[in-house]
Amino acid sequence: MFILNNNDPAPLYKQLYHQIRAQVLSGELPADSRLPSVRDLATELSTSRNTVEGAYQELYAEGYIYSRPRSGYFVSALDHDAAPLPLPRASRKEDRVEEASPAYRYDFHPARLDRQSFPAQLWRKLFVESLRNNSRQLVQYGELQGEWNLRCAIRRYLERSRGVLCDQEQIIVCAGLQQGLDLVALMLKENHSALAAEDPGYHLPRAVFRNHGYEIVPVPVGANGLDLDLLIAGRSTIAYVTPSHQLPMGYVMPVANRLKLIEWAESGNTFIIEDDYDSELRYHGKPIPSLQGLRPQGNIIYSGTFSKVLSPALRMSYLVLPRSLLPVYRRLFRDYFSTVPFLEQHTLARFMEEGHWDRHIRRMRIIYKKKHDTLLRAVERHFGPRATVIGQGAGLHVVLQLDGAGRCEAEIIRRAQDQGIRLLPFSDTCVSDASAGHTRLLLGFGGMTAGDIEPGIALLSQACF
Amino acid sequence: MFILNNNDPAPLYKQLYHQIRAQVLSGELPADSRLPSVRDLATELSTSRNTVEGAYQELYAEGYIYSRPRSGYFVSALDHDAAPLPLPRASRKEDRVEEASPAYRYDFHPARLDRQSFPAQLWRKLFVESLRNNSRQLVQYGELQGEWNLRCAIRRYLERSRGVLCDQEQIIVCAGLQQGLDLVALMLKENHSALAAEDPGYHLPRAVFRNHGYEIVPVPVGANGLDLDLLIAGRSTIAYVTPSHQLPMGYVMPVANRLKLIEWAESGNTFIIEDDYDSELRYHGKPIPSLQGLRPQGNIIYSGTFSKVLSPALRMSYLVLPRSLLPVYRRLFRDYFSTVPFLEQHTLARFMEEGHWDRHIRRMRIIYKKKHDTLLRAVERHFGPRATVIGQGAGLHVVLQLDGAGRCEAEIIRRAQDQGIRLLPFSDTCVSDASAGHTRLLLGFGGMTAGDIEPGIALLSQACF
Repeated sequence: MFILNNNDPAPLYKQLYHQIRAQVLSGELPADSRLPSVRDLATELSTSRNTVEGAYQELYAEGYIYSRPRSGYFVSALDHDAAPLPLPRASRKEDRVEEASPAYRYDFHPARLDRQSFPAQLWRKLFVESLRNNSRQLVQYGELQGEWNLRCAIRRYLERSRGVLCDQEQIIVCAGLQQGLDLVALMLKENHSALAAEDPGYHLPRAVFRNHGYEIVPVPVGANGLDLDLLIAGRSTIAYVTPSHQLPMGYVMPVANRLKLIEWAESGNTFIIEDDYDSELRYHGKPIPSLQGLRPQGNIIYSGTFSKVLSPALRMSYLVLPRSLLPVYRRLFRDYFSTVPFLEQHTLARFMEEGHWDRHIRRMRIIYKKKHDTLLRAVERHFGPRATVIGQGAGLHVVLQLDGAGRCEAEIIRRAQDQGIRLLPFSDTCVSDASAGHTRLLLGFGGMTAGDIEPGIALLSQACF
Repeated sequence: MFILNNNDPAPLYKQLYHQIRAQVLSGELPADSRLPSVRDLATELSTSRNTVEGAYQELYAEGYIYSRPRSGYFVSALDHDAAPLPLPRASRKEDRVEEASPAYRYDFHPARLDRQSFPAQLWRKLFVESLRNNSRQLVQYGELQGEWNLRCAIRRYLERSRGVLCDQEQIIVCAGLQQGLDLVALMLKENHSALAAEDPGYHLPRAVFRNHGYEIVPVPVGANGLDLDLLIAGRSTIAYVTPSHQLPMGYVMPVANRLKLIEWAESGNTFIIEDDYDSELRYHGKPIPSLQGLRPQGNIIYSGTFSKVLSPALRMSYLVLPRSLLPVYRRLFRDYFSTVPFLEQHTLARFMEEGHWDRHIRRMRIIYKKKHDTLLRAVERHFGPRATVIGQGAGLHVVLQLDGAGRCEAEIIRRAQDQGIRLLPFSDTCVSDASAGHTRLLLGFGGMTAGDIEPGIALLSQACF
């Protein structure tokens, strides 16, 4: 018995479809039983033949019923044990079930940017123009390696500002470092199985390569960057390094070490991944040139990002591949698509072509230098001889090394949190416990207002001792 | 001897830096030789001390020179064998070196969308609003799984239109199918090593899983979808399937097969990847419900995309993970970031929340149904009994199977190209040669204007025979 309800918003044929389907699935309508003819059922239900025909066609298309020529429709034999079970109704509320992160008055997270300085008006203008002028590009997939004009703009910028020498064919526009490293891990997997990573160092590359099955070999970091003798003596054939501004320690790798590292990368089937993540932000003198520029034809995979100076929410970064990897890249990813939206790429290309990127870098350097200097003064005032600042002069964070017998990291972070202060644990960057008895704090200043830095540091110093 | 040139646009200190650096690297200034004092060199060059001091500071920061207290600066000992070689100057033109793809008058590529119908005005309005109202979100990373409001909108849409039952916690916003499959391949790698893929079938999933080291096991496709007996007898523990509209053959998997497939996915540590890529585009009756909706608590990874109905250039898709995979997801990707830009996600969320997505689907269904029907009429007229259409009634393409002794695929594609017709080779979808003597053509109609379809098919028929 089927009931059609004219007041139900669902079309009549759908109502009928659902009722028959339910009876087929429940076994109420057994396998191979004959359904009434279209004409009969329409008469019985006082509805049109189209309604019945529509329901039967749906059921037929999905295999709930089958037809025999000149005999009509019959119920298919289904495996009822495999039929849908009653659903456990999961929580359907759209409230967040994850606990909300507490509101921090002082956020020293090193990945935060200045809240006021995203060039929103300009971005809007360029985005709207890109949308207006590129309707044809929106109905198809873009270029695998990224849009040509963006790659040209990145190449020009890298050559001018970072000494990176490459062609557009070597550039891959990526949705952030991690997506770029995914490509690298896939490309190198055939011949490599261990990644040397700075310790302390950025945890993301370790996570990406570990997920791809690589062994992670931590290499201690000293004031000249990672320990090259240990790297050379070790079994890793890929080294992930941050030579311009070691993450998190802020050291600059001296040129002698750079040359030695480059030589290592030519001593066999070995690769350097140079992550130049915040090279734009040097507050004294000009940026440190890249490793890639010292040996453009070497086995150096160069990575840069727009997350530190422009916005991490844009999810745009790039790789410069050595020419030796291009055949592998093309072989593995020939059928892939770019992961970065066309309009965003085009907007960024215009932003760079028109000189806004260079101006924005200069502007941000001034803003962040002011915050950086304010932070150092506040640390000097409130910590005095009880702490040493490491890695100042660049980027969006410094490391504060507490001298003497201060509290341990976990206790400081907990106490700071009680005061409304957010700290990313320094220990997140460590593979081994390389602190050697020192408590170290990561102090990001990018997202702090200049006025909040001094009171935040004052409060933090109370949490430390 | 150093020469400073006031007409050079580079600052004087940079000119000096470059000249000293070149001499250090060339060995002209030998290791441990003492540099002139700042005062002496400034006098010698008739420049300010700041200029010399700036150059020395740069050289010092990069390790080209070192200092001894009260003695001044000395040249560092570098490994000159490792110093930069003269650069092979690569082509610096920004002209494309890849050959431009020929201009096609008739583009039957199945991944093309209607050129006129991207809702650009609406998208612009919502994007501009998102940019205006979310400045805080632009200075930090977004949510790993995708923005909450977008996941809520996707969940509501999936439940209403596809029968997919899930919570927001199970949804991952991805930058296209391939990026989602990358995550899946990483999550399943510990316990799985072979992927069953439809043959013929979409080549992208095969490429992704092959790159992750999986064995690809082709499973032949018949009129009921992939051959379940072969799947069950085989060694694959993951099956990639397109049950609502088999890609490329267009078959709908009957419910008996669906239930059998679901049962297989519960018979051990086995997973189904259900790619519901163009489910919105069914021209007769309502969309075929999803596998996931038949067994929401099963081992079914559901994938959907905005590339077929809205735009492939947006690079937005989603995964619905089974609850059983959430712990693995969180363990592997805890430190990762979303690959999809915040503003784009927020724009799409608004687009869905305000009902535009549903309206857009209805509009596109009408537009594509017209093109679909035009294509079928044109094929009937120009091919008549010499060809059979397979997989009509849904999506953005049909398969044309040429009967009798027509030309081979390569020849047809070449001849069609000479007539300005673009065809994606059907053989790209095949692992084995499953054509059984038939020549098959993939006919996409999404990017064709309604007026071009008839003359395009007329020309194509001449290329075929």
